[in-house]
Amino acid sequence: MPYVNIRITREGATSEQKARLIQGATQLLVEVLGKNPQTTVVVIDEVDTDNWGIGGESVTVRRKRGQ
Amino acid sequence: MPYVNIRITREGATSEQKARLIQGATQLLVEVLGKNPQTTVVVIDEVDTDNWGIGGESVTVRRKRGQ
Amino acid sequence: MPYVNIRITREGATSEQKARLIQGATQLLVEVLGKNPQTTVVVIDEVDTDNWGIGGESVTVRRKRGQ
Amino acid sequence: MPYVNIRITREGATSEQKARLIQGATQLLVEVLGKNPQTTVVVIDEVDTDNWGIGGESVTVRRKRGQ
Amino acid sequence: MPYVNIRITREGATSEQKARLIQGATQLLVEVLGKNPQTTVVVIDEVDTDNWGIGGESVTVRRKRGQ
Amino acid sequence: MPYVNIRITREGATSEQKARLIQGATQLLVEVLGKNPQTTVVVIDEVDTDNWGIGGESVTVRRKRGQ
Repeated sequence: MPYVNIRITREGATSEQKARLIQGATQLLVEVLGKNPQTTVVVIDEVDTDNWGIGGESVTVRRKRGQ
Repeated sequence: MPYVNIRITREGATSEQKARLIQGATQLLVEVLGKNPQTTVVVIDEVDTDNWGIGGESVTVRRKRGQ
Repeated sequence: MPYVNIRITREGATSEQKARLIQGATQLLVEVLGKNPQTTVVVIDEVDTDNWGIGGESVTVRRKRGQ
Repeated sequence: MPYVNIRITREGATSEQKARLIQGATQLLVEVLGKNPQTTVVVIDEVDTDNWGIGGESVTVRRKRGQ
Repeated sequence: MPYVNIRITREGATSEQKARLIQGATQLLVEVLGKNPQTTVVVIDEVDTDNWGIGGESVTVRRKRGQ
Repeated sequence: MPYVNIRITREGATSEQKARLIQGATQLLVEVLGKNPQTTVVVIDEVDTDNWGIGGESVTVRRKRGQ
């Protein structure tokens, strides 16, 4: 019954990578807490780099500097 | 003053259906808890089926199997 | 498969009221979008009035003024 | 290490405005709680006006009425 | 820079189990997307069973029936 | 109408500090985007240090090492 929300910047994650995140997060809950995978929900949010900040500036600005 | 966040897969919900979700969720808070509808916020997030997982796989994959 | 998060101030909602919120939100998704209730998740967060702000001040302060 | 999520309607916020939100929210956590800005994350979600409700109706409908 | 939010019912997860969730979710983001673990944040929310609903009823009620 | 969610570790933030976060976040939305403070909601979540991870380990463990 767990709900897992993975938030990442939108920088080209493929469907295959997102499938691996879903599979891996579900497996983690099964292994660590014995949760039922059939009712484990994983939602991935991809956020524009203009809309994600760390260190007081956007990821867009950081990427331009090569970070 | 409540905040309700409804997360669904992006599969063609219409503006009219979303208006009904907003109206219904607001009404629920008024009826059950006597909340003020004027400050009740409802936010609907529509999530791509590649980004929503249940049972360890994406909804995209499940839909292809007819689930 | 929807996920509904209802956030309210912690001001004495009873188990019976929370059960009604869960039942009502699930029913809303079934009626409006034809969702499967068996995989519809509703999570209620109760938040201390010191931690909830509107109009630039906490609900604790507003309640003291009779709002 | 704080995480700040700012949710607003999608109504034309510019990159410059979003940079100011990121900078301002980070600064707030530094000033009030002495948090480390380098690990303070700010994520801005812009939500379609059809998907944001207040007072039981969508912002789309409210904007049409001039609110 | 990812943010992962794991929401589970409050049913006795130990500090050791929570440490494994944090370690596993961080590792998943590193392996699948090459993210930097030093800025990967994982937040676990434990929610009372009265406040978590699935299938239109609370987990408290389901647990009493042996589910 | 914005909704701001500030998530921090539970490490003794006072009511006065939380009031400043609410006031400051609201003011930020007013100044940058011209939002109406009367419908701006700020919710602060305080999370146990066992439940907050960064760099693959909990804040509890990091604090013990003096970080």
